[in-house]
Amino acid sequence: MIMSYKVAVVGFGAVGKEIVRLLNQDVLPLESPPRILATRAREERLDGRTYQVLETADEHFTDVDIAIFAGSEGARGASVTFGWKAVENGAVVVDNSSDFRMDPKVPLVVPEVNFSAINPDHRFIANPNCSTIQMAMALAPIHRAVGLKRVIVSTYQAVSGWGTAAMNQLKSQVDDFEAGREIQVDSSIIARQIAFNVVPQIDRFQPNAFTKEEMKMVNETRKILGDPEILISATCVRVPVFRGHAEAVTVETKSPLTPEEARRLLAAADDEAKEGRYRSRLIVVDNPSDDVAPEERYPTPLDSDSTSHVYVGRIRQDPVFENGLSLWVVSDNLLKGAAFNAVQIAERMHLKGMIAGGRGAH
Amino acid sequence: MIMSYKVAVVGFGAVGKEIVRLLNQDVLPLESPPRILATRAREERLDGRTYQVLETADEHFTDVDIAIFAGSEGARGASVTFGWKAVENGAVVVDNSSDFRMDPKVPLVVPEVNFSAINPDHRFIANPNCSTIQMAMALAPIHRAVGLKRVIVSTYQAVSGWGTAAMNQLKSQVDDFEAGREIQVDSSIIARQIAFNVVPQIDRFQPNAFTKEEMKMVNETRKILGDPEILISATCVRVPVFRGHAEAVTVETKSPLTPEEARRLLAAADDEAKEGRYRSRLIVVDNPSDDVAPEERYPTPLDSDSTSHVYVGRIRQDPVFENGLSLWVVSDNLLKGAAFNAVQIAERMHLKGMIAGGRGAH
Repeated sequence: MIMSYKVAVVGFGAVGKEIVRLLNQDVLPLESPPRILATRAREERLDGRTYQVLETADEHFTDVDIAIFAGSEGARGASVTFGWKAVENGAVVVDNSSDFRMDPKVPLVVPEVNFSAINPDHRFIANPNCSTIQMAMALAPIHRAVGLKRVIVSTYQAVSGWGTAAMNQLKSQVDDFEAGREIQVDSSIIARQIAFNVVPQIDRFQPNAFTKEEMKMVNETRKILGDPEILISATCVRVPVFRGHAEAVTVETKSPLTPEEARRLLAAADDEAKEGRYRSRLIVVDNPSDDVAPEERYPTPLDSDSTSHVYVGRIRQDPVFENGLSLWVVSDNLLKGAAFNAVQIAERMHLKGMIAGGRGAH
Repeated sequence: MIMSYKVAVVGFGAVGKEIVRLLNQDVLPLESPPRILATRAREERLDGRTYQVLETADEHFTDVDIAIFAGSEGARGASVTFGWKAVENGAVVVDNSSDFRMDPKVPLVVPEVNFSAINPDHRFIANPNCSTIQMAMALAPIHRAVGLKRVIVSTYQAVSGWGTAAMNQLKSQVDDFEAGREIQVDSSIIARQIAFNVVPQIDRFQPNAFTKEEMKMVNETRKILGDPEILISATCVRVPVFRGHAEAVTVETKSPLTPEEARRLLAAADDEAKEGRYRSRLIVVDNPSDDVAPEERYPTPLDSDSTSHVYVGRIRQDPVFENGLSLWVVSDNLLKGAAFNAVQIAERMHLKGMIAGGRGAH
């Protein structure tokens, strides 16, 4: 019997749609088209096809082999209500919500970095925060080689990280601007005007005056890299970009590492990451010279749009530390930052025989 | 006799126009309307008035008391050709170009921070880089109180910092987007598409892989704060904002400073900065809570637009250093970052009797 799976996707917002697109590309052997669940039953069109969206309920997980929770928008919190029951019913859950990422029983996984955190008993896997995934991809080879002591990151995050409503908000504000109308702001979506502005708040403020997004970058990065000693601080900023997060990262390493060595390390990490049909490459675009074509100098969010890769540039010795390095990391927040990473986790678990499968066929 | 001045403004781009606007507000007693010089003679309209722009030539400086070089666009480098001759002819020069900022003979001045760097013999004063001025305003009180050891800054810089052509470039790219046309990029203005994108290059790359803008922030900040020992590194990024630079700044101080103490220090520095009719306030907007109105939580570039102030928020203990502090600094790059600071320098020199004046009247 050829192994094939019944897959449920929970959430059909910006991330959920990307998960369905990836599943439609045969990344996993599916017994039937993915079942799409969300807070509200409806019919939705995507890429010229019509999808029947069912209202999320326990009964829809009883025959499912893999449940991927998109964790965005309407489906927020769905894994709290339905995730562990799906596991009890025999499914493997990959959860893109933030609810269980720091749970010690739950592996938090970027496949290229720490797939080994998943052992055969794990049935519930957390997918990290978008801004964390791309930074972890870039820092992991450096951490392995010379150790990380301090990480200071400032982000430039696209509106799609906050879902379809935030993308529509940017679009409608740009429409207002072009039409010469007063720009309308719905602060329940993004606190301040985002068109032609930047907003240093992503998610809610915590008691320490950092935002939830900033603390995710701190705590999740430590968990993924398996090193609670790394000192990390983040400033997370929303910028008027639809898709693609960028990050300015400054690190202090434990031993010296030249920019040239860092470039070689990252390129080598890319070559190693060959497991699975679907993988994220770690691509160095770093030619800091005005004599090369602009698109070869460094990556920008536009370069990452709709790709599954993580791009690194602006690698340079940072004079603030004796062993200092600065870099610029870019990736599509909806793909490697969310949908692609989640599907990769499921794909690798499948390749390793960690998913029972075929339950629908019995 | 009431002292009055003949003033020349060199450059009539984004910054030059703001200088003329400020001079029209009686910031200095003018004997006659400012003389406007640029690379090319022409007639230009501004705020409903017509201005005769003359071609810059030595003869236009012979009777001038104050020459302010806007240092932007067409007038780039004008101070190299005409600045010192204007001084020889008896003028005080305030230069917003970057050509003489690091010259040991030339004071580099943010009036609220280091006006005392100007002594009565100085006739040529440099105006710092836009992103440097606002950071120096925010860091000076902290540096005076507890000393700065390390500064790591990531910027979010508006297109107007690169002049009118860059503002038009953003506007035309947004027009293309709205019309559903392919977005046109003129990489001679901004290397990559700037609409719905961010670009980690401002000015040319240097041999150390930092950009010229980034090294300005390093070197100029040290000169203004009078401390060559401070370790500084910058990542300067262009964002699709028309006006207003933002900066995420992390510092290590020599002695401890709580966020509450930092807020008090900055507020006190604001109260002290009362000299002159025209002044930049240092305004703390820092209420990191989702229970306060969004506009009271932190400043954004839009809040600074067309104001002369520097706004600071997101002040928090930074866990990366034992004595660490992070903050978010926002200001209008064309005003406090350029025109306003330059005019302030001239105004304070006038108030201190450092400008001869009335030469045209003799």
